[in-house]
Amino acid sequence: MRGKVVHAIQDEYAEDYSWCYGCGRLNEQGLHLRTGWDGDRTVTYYAPRAEQMAVPGFVYGGLIASLIDCHGTGSASLALHRKNGYEPGSKAPEPPRFVTASLKVDFVKPTPHGVPLKAIGVTEEIHPKKWKVSIEVFAEDTCCAMGEVIAVVMPKTFQNK
Amino acid sequence: MRGKVVHAIQDEYAEDYSWCYGCGRLNEQGLHLRTGWDGDRTVTYYAPRAEQMAVPGFVYGGLIASLIDCHGTGSASLALHRKNGYEPGSKAPEPPRFVTASLKVDFVKPTPHGVPLKAIGVTEEIHPKKWKVSIEVFAEDTCCAMGEVIAVVMPKTFQNK
Repeated sequence: MRGKVVHAIQDEYAEDYSWCYGCGRLNEQGLHLRTGWDGDRTVTYYAPRAEQMAVPGFVYGGLIASLIDCHGTGSASLALHRKNGYEPGSKAPEPPRFVTASLKVDFVKPTPHGVPLKAIGVTEEIHPKKWKVSIEVFAEDTCCAMGEVIAVVMPKTFQNK
Repeated sequence: MRGKVVHAIQDEYAEDYSWCYGCGRLNEQGLHLRTGWDGDRTVTYYAPRAEQMAVPGFVYGGLIASLIDCHGTGSASLALHRKNGYEPGSKAPEPPRFVTASLKVDFVKPTPHGVPLKAIGVTEEIHPKKWKVSIEVFAEDTCCAMGEVIAVVMPKTFQNK
Protein backbone atom coordinates (compact mmCIF):
# COMPACT_ATOMS: atom_id res chain seq x y z
CA MET A 1 0.00 0.00 0.00
CA ARG A 2 2.80 2.44 0.82
CA GLY A 3 3.69 4.06 -2.46
CA LYS A 4 5.01 7.13 -4.11
CA VAL A 5 3.95 9.06 -7.15
CA VAL A 6 6.97 9.51 -9.41
CA HIS A 7 5.56 11.96 -11.94
CA ALA A 8 2.94 14.18 -10.32
CA ILE A 9 0.87 16.69 -12.24
CA GLN A 10 1.39 19.22 -9.43
CA ASP A 11 5.13 19.21 -10.15
CA GLU A 12 4.29 20.81 -13.48
CA TYR A 13 1.65 23.40 -12.61
CA ALA A 14 2.68 26.94 -13.44
CA GLU A 15 4.33 28.70 -10.48
CA ASP A 16 1.37 31.05 -10.01
CA TYR A 17 -0.85 27.99 -9.49
CA SER A 18 1.47 26.13 -7.13
CA TRP A 19 0.54 27.76 -3.82
CA CYS A 20 -2.46 25.60 -2.92
CA TYR A 21 -2.47 24.56 0.73
CA GLY A 22 -3.43 21.04 -0.32
CA CYS A 23 -1.26 20.39 -3.34
CA GLY A 24 0.97 23.36 -4.07
CA ARG A 25 4.65 22.49 -4.18
CA LEU A 26 5.52 26.08 -3.18
CA ASN A 27 3.28 26.25 -0.08
CA GLU A 28 5.70 25.48 2.73
CA GLN A 29 3.05 24.74 5.37
CA GLY A 30 0.82 22.80 2.97
CA LEU A 31 0.08 19.11 2.55
CA HIS A 32 2.06 18.68 -0.69
CA LEU A 33 -0.41 16.21 -2.15
CA ARG A 34 0.89 14.74 -5.42
CA THR A 35 -1.30 13.04 -8.01
CA GLY A 36 -0.18 10.76 -10.80
CA TRP A 37 -1.38 8.02 -13.11
CA ASP A 38 -1.55 4.36 -12.12
CA GLY A 39 -2.59 2.88 -15.45
CA ASP A 40 -5.91 4.47 -16.29
CA ARG A 41 -6.62 5.43 -12.69
CA THR A 42 -5.15 8.27 -10.68
CA VAL A 43 -3.45 7.97 -7.31
CA THR A 44 -2.40 10.23 -4.42
CA TYR A 45 -0.71 9.07 -1.21
CA TYR A 46 -0.73 10.91 2.09
CA ALA A 47 0.45 10.10 5.60
CA PRO A 48 -1.64 12.23 8.01
CA ARG A 49 0.23 14.36 10.53
CA ALA A 50 -0.24 13.56 14.22
CA GLU A 51 -2.51 16.56 14.78
CA GLN A 52 -4.83 15.74 11.84
CA MET A 53 -7.20 13.69 13.95
CA ALA A 54 -10.95 13.68 14.61
CA VAL A 55 -10.57 11.89 17.90
CA PRO A 56 -7.39 10.13 19.05
CA GLY A 57 -6.76 7.17 16.74
CA PHE A 58 -8.82 8.40 13.79
CA VAL A 59 -8.15 10.80 10.92
CA TYR A 60 -9.86 14.20 10.68
CA GLY A 61 -12.70 14.22 8.14
CA GLY A 62 -11.73 17.66 6.86
CA LEU A 63 -8.31 16.27 5.95
CA ILE A 64 -9.95 13.45 4.02
CA ALA A 65 -12.15 16.02 2.26
CA SER A 66 -8.99 18.01 1.42
CA LEU A 67 -7.30 14.89 0.05
CA ILE A 68 -10.34 14.19 -2.12
CA ASP A 69 -10.55 17.83 -3.23
CA CYS A 70 -6.96 18.07 -4.49
CA HIS A 71 -7.00 14.53 -5.84
CA GLY A 72 -10.04 15.57 -7.86
CA THR A 73 -8.51 18.67 -9.41
CA GLY A 74 -5.18 16.90 -9.97
CA SER A 75 -6.92 13.94 -11.63
CA ALA A 76 -8.92 16.21 -13.93
CA SER A 77 -5.72 17.99 -14.91
CA LEU A 78 -4.00 14.67 -15.63
CA ALA A 79 -6.95 13.51 -17.73
CA LEU A 80 -7.23 16.62 -19.89
CA HIS A 81 -3.44 16.73 -20.23
CA ARG A 82 -3.47 13.11 -21.47
CA LYS A 83 -6.37 13.86 -23.81
CA ASN A 84 -4.19 16.65 -25.22
CA GLY A 85 -1.39 14.13 -25.80
CA TYR A 86 0.81 14.76 -22.77
CA GLU A 87 1.98 12.88 -19.70
CA PRO A 88 3.62 14.31 -16.57
CA GLY A 89 7.36 13.77 -16.61
CA SER A 90 7.63 14.29 -20.36
CA LYS A 91 8.39 17.46 -22.25
CA ALA A 92 5.01 19.14 -22.47
CA PRO A 93 3.26 22.47 -22.13
CA GLU A 94 1.95 23.50 -18.71
CA PRO A 95 -0.98 21.27 -17.75
CA PRO A 96 -4.44 22.81 -17.32
CA ARG A 97 -5.24 23.95 -13.77
CA PHE A 98 -8.65 22.94 -12.44
CA VAL A 99 -10.67 24.15 -9.47
CA THR A 100 -13.43 22.37 -7.58
CA ALA A 101 -17.02 23.22 -8.44
CA SER A 102 -18.47 20.68 -6.03
CA LEU A 103 -17.23 18.09 -3.58
CA LYS A 104 -19.06 15.18 -2.01
CA VAL A 105 -17.69 12.81 0.59
CA ASP A 106 -19.31 9.76 2.16
CA PHE A 107 -17.43 8.69 5.25
CA VAL A 108 -17.92 4.95 5.03
CA LYS A 109 -15.83 3.90 8.03
CA PRO A 110 -13.72 5.65 10.67
CA THR A 111 -10.27 6.15 9.09
CA PRO A 112 -7.50 4.82 11.34
CA HIS A 113 -4.62 7.18 12.06
CA GLY A 114 -1.01 6.05 11.67
CA VAL A 115 -1.25 4.28 8.33
CA PRO A 116 -0.68 5.93 4.94
CA LEU A 117 -3.77 6.82 2.96
CA LYS A 118 -4.22 6.16 -0.74
CA ALA A 119 -6.77 7.94 -2.92
CA ILE A 120 -7.71 6.30 -6.21
CA GLY A 121 -9.61 8.20 -8.87
CA VAL A 122 -11.55 7.47 -12.04
CA THR A 123 -12.00 10.42 -14.40
CA GLU A 124 -14.90 11.09 -16.71
CA GLU A 125 -15.19 13.94 -19.16
CA ILE A 126 -18.42 15.91 -18.92
CA HIS A 127 -17.15 18.43 -21.42
CA PRO A 128 -13.57 19.47 -22.14
CA LYS A 129 -13.47 22.04 -19.34
CA LYS A 130 -15.51 20.03 -16.82
CA TRP A 131 -14.64 16.59 -15.46
CA LYS A 132 -16.10 14.28 -12.86
CA VAL A 133 -13.69 12.35 -10.67
CA SER A 134 -14.91 9.42 -8.56
CA ILE A 135 -12.57 8.74 -5.68
CA GLU A 136 -12.04 6.05 -3.07
CA VAL A 137 -9.79 6.61 -0.07
CA PHE A 138 -8.10 3.57 1.41
CA ALA A 139 -6.32 3.03 4.72
CA GLU A 140 -4.31 -0.11 4.09
CA ASP A 141 -6.82 -2.29 2.23
CA THR A 142 -9.95 -0.76 3.71
CA CYS A 143 -12.02 1.79 1.81
CA CYS A 144 -12.88 4.40 4.44
CA ALA A 145 -14.33 7.20 2.30
CA MET A 146 -15.85 7.64 -1.13
CA GLY A 147 -15.90 10.98 -2.88
CA GLU A 148 -16.93 12.76 -6.03
CA VAL A 149 -15.43 15.96 -7.36
CA ILE A 150 -16.74 18.08 -10.20
CA ALA A 151 -13.68 19.97 -11.41
CA VAL A 152 -13.66 22.82 -13.90
CA VAL A 153 -10.82 24.59 -15.64
CA MET A 154 -9.88 27.55 -13.46
CA PRO A 155 -12.00 30.55 -14.50
CA LYS A 156 -10.63 34.06 -14.84
CA THR A 157 -12.35 35.01 -11.56
CA PHE A 158 -9.47 33.24 -9.78
CA GLN A 159 -6.93 35.50 -11.37
CA ASN A 160 -6.19 38.27 -8.95
CA LYS A 161 -3.85 40.31 -11.02
CA MET B 1 -19.70 40.52 9.80
CA ARG B 2 -16.77 40.11 12.17
CA GLY B 3 -18.15 38.33 15.17
CA LYS B 4 -17.40 36.00 17.99
CA VAL B 5 -19.24 33.03 19.42
CA VAL B 6 -19.57 33.53 23.17
CA HIS B 7 -20.89 30.13 24.19
CA ALA B 8 -19.60 27.44 21.84
CA ILE B 9 -20.66 23.83 22.01
CA GLN B 10 -17.04 22.76 21.51
CA ASP B 11 -16.12 24.41 24.83
CA GLU B 12 -18.25 21.76 26.51
CA TYR B 13 -17.35 18.57 24.66
CA ALA B 14 -15.84 15.92 26.91
CA GLU B 15 -12.03 16.09 26.98
CA ASP B 16 -11.69 12.82 25.06
CA TYR B 17 -13.68 14.38 22.20
CA SER B 18 -11.83 17.72 22.15
CA TRP B 19 -8.84 16.83 19.99
CA CYS B 20 -10.39 17.36 16.57
CA TYR B 21 -8.07 19.23 14.19
CA GLY B 22 -10.98 21.37 13.09
CA CYS B 23 -12.79 22.15 16.31
CA GLY B 24 -11.02 20.58 19.27
CA ARG B 25 -10.07 23.08 21.94
CA LEU B 26 -7.17 20.82 23.04
CA ASN B 27 -5.58 20.43 19.57
CA GLU B 28 -2.81 23.01 19.65
CA GLN B 29 -2.19 23.03 15.89
CA GLY B 30 -5.88 22.91 14.99
CA LEU B 31 -8.33 25.48 13.65
CA HIS B 32 -10.26 25.92 16.92
CA LEU B 33 -13.59 26.35 15.16
CA ARG B 34 -16.32 27.32 17.63
CA THR B 35 -20.03 26.93 16.94
CA GLY B 36 -22.88 28.60 18.77
CA TRP B 37 -26.50 29.66 18.41
CA ASP B 38 -27.59 32.86 16.71
CA GLY B 39 -31.32 32.67 17.39
CA ASP B 40 -32.50 29.48 15.73
CA ARG B 41 -29.51 29.33 13.38
CA THR B 42 -25.98 28.26 14.16
CA VAL B 43 -22.84 30.24 13.47
CA THR B 44 -19.07 29.69 13.26
CA TYR B 45 -16.48 32.37 12.43
CA TYR B 46 -13.03 31.74 11.05
CA ALA B 47 -10.23 33.93 9.74
CA PRO B 48 -8.15 31.81 7.33
CA ARG B 49 -4.41 31.66 7.93
CA ALA B 50 -2.14 33.09 5.25
CA GLU B 51 -1.12 29.65 4.00
CA GLN B 52 -4.72 28.38 3.64
CA MET B 53 -5.05 29.50 0.03
CA ALA B 54 -6.01 27.83 -3.25
CA VAL B 55 -4.18 30.41 -5.33
CA PRO B 56 -2.90 33.74 -3.98
CA GLY B 57 -5.90 35.86 -2.98
CA PHE B 58 -8.41 33.02 -2.58
CA VAL B 59 -9.19 30.60 0.23
CA TYR B 60 -8.38 26.87 -0.03
CA GLY B 61 -11.45 24.76 -0.78
CA GLY B 62 -10.37 22.05 1.65
CA LEU B 63 -10.41 24.64 4.43
CA ILE B 64 -13.95 25.62 3.48
CA ALA B 65 -14.91 21.93 3.49
CA SER B 66 -13.33 21.62 6.95
CA LEU B 67 -15.26 24.66 8.20
CA ILE B 68 -18.49 23.14 6.89
CA ASP B 69 -17.64 19.74 8.34
CA CYS B 70 -17.08 20.95 11.90
CA HIS B 71 -19.88 23.50 11.68
CA GLY B 72 -22.14 20.57 10.76
CA THR B 73 -21.21 18.35 13.68
CA GLY B 74 -21.21 21.30 16.09
CA SER B 75 -24.63 22.44 14.88
CA ALA B 76 -26.09 18.96 15.26
CA SER B 77 -24.71 18.79 18.78
CA LEU B 78 -26.22 22.18 19.62
CA ALA B 79 -29.57 21.10 18.21
CA LEU B 80 -29.83 17.82 20.07
CA HIS B 81 -28.55 19.49 23.24
CA ARG B 82 -31.30 22.13 22.93
CA LYS B 83 -33.88 19.44 22.24
CA ASN B 84 -32.75 17.83 25.48
CA GLY B 85 -33.35 21.14 27.29
CA TYR B 86 -29.81 22.52 27.44
CA GLU B 87 -27.88 25.49 26.09
CA PRO B 88 -24.09 25.96 25.97
CA GLY B 89 -22.92 28.24 28.75
CA SER B 90 -25.47 26.93 31.22
CA LYS B 91 -25.05 24.17 33.74
CA ALA B 92 -25.75 21.06 31.71
CA PRO B 93 -24.54 17.52 31.09
CA GLU B 94 -21.91 16.97 28.40
CA PRO B 95 -23.42 17.63 24.97
CA PRO B 96 -23.71 14.76 22.47
CA ARG B 97 -20.70 14.40 20.13
CA PHE B 98 -21.52 13.93 16.47
CA VAL B 99 -19.43 12.73 13.53
CA THR B 100 -19.94 13.38 9.83
CA ALA B 101 -21.60 10.66 7.77
CA SER B 102 -21.54 12.70 4.58
CA LEU B 103 -20.44 16.12 3.45
CA LYS B 104 -21.37 18.07 0.33
CA VAL B 105 -19.97 21.42 -0.73
CA ASP B 106 -20.91 23.56 -3.71
CA PHE B 107 -18.29 26.22 -4.32
CA VAL B 108 -20.49 29.02 -5.59
CA LYS B 109 -17.84 31.72 -5.97
CA PRO B 110 -14.11 32.04 -5.35
CA THR B 111 -13.71 32.89 -1.64
CA PRO B 112 -11.54 35.97 -1.13
CA HIS B 113 -8.68 35.64 1.33
CA GLY B 114 -8.12 38.25 4.03
CA VAL B 115 -11.68 38.67 5.28
CA PRO B 116 -13.24 36.66 8.11
CA LEU B 117 -15.56 33.86 7.08
CA LYS B 118 -18.93 33.17 8.65
CA ALA B 119 -20.76 29.84 8.39
CA ILE B 120 -24.49 29.83 9.10
CA GLY B 121 -26.36 26.60 9.66
CA VAL B 122 -29.95 25.38 9.76
CA THR B 123 -30.51 22.10 11.55
CA GLU B 124 -33.13 19.48 10.80
CA GLU B 125 -33.73 16.31 12.75
CA ILE B 126 -33.86 13.16 10.63
CA HIS B 127 -34.05 11.03 13.73
CA PRO B 128 -32.67 11.72 17.22
CA LYS B 129 -29.21 10.40 16.39
CA LYS B 130 -29.05 11.74 12.82
CA TRP B 131 -29.34 15.40 11.80
CA LYS B 132 -29.05 17.30 8.55
CA VAL B 133 -27.34 20.68 8.66
CA SER B 134 -27.64 23.08 5.71
CA ILE B 135 -24.81 25.58 5.68
CA GLU B 136 -23.90 28.78 3.88
CA VAL B 137 -20.40 30.25 4.08
CA PHE B 138 -20.08 34.00 3.71
CA ALA B 139 -17.07 36.23 3.07
CA GLU B 140 -18.32 39.64 4.13
CA ASP B 141 -21.83 39.71 2.64
CA THR B 142 -21.16 37.29 -0.22
CA CYS B 143 -22.20 33.65 -0.05
CA CYS B 144 -19.21 31.78 -1.49
CA ALA B 145 -20.07 28.17 -0.62
CA MET B 146 -23.11 26.12 0.26
CA GLY B 147 -22.86 22.85 2.13
CA GLU B 148 -24.83 20.02 3.61
CA VAL B 149 -23.69 17.75 6.40
CA ILE B 150 -25.37 14.59 7.59
CA ALA B 151 -24.16 14.18 11.15
CA VAL B 152 -24.70 11.16 13.38
CA VAL B 153 -24.05 10.61 17.06
CA MET B 154 -20.53 9.21 17.34
CA PRO B 155 -20.70 5.43 17.10
CA LYS B 156 -18.70 3.10 19.31
CA THR B 157 -16.38 2.36 16.37
CA PHE B 158 -14.72 5.71 17.09
CA GLN B 159 -13.86 4.68 20.61
CA ASN B 160 -10.33 3.46 20.55
CA LYS B 161 -9.98 2.40 24.13
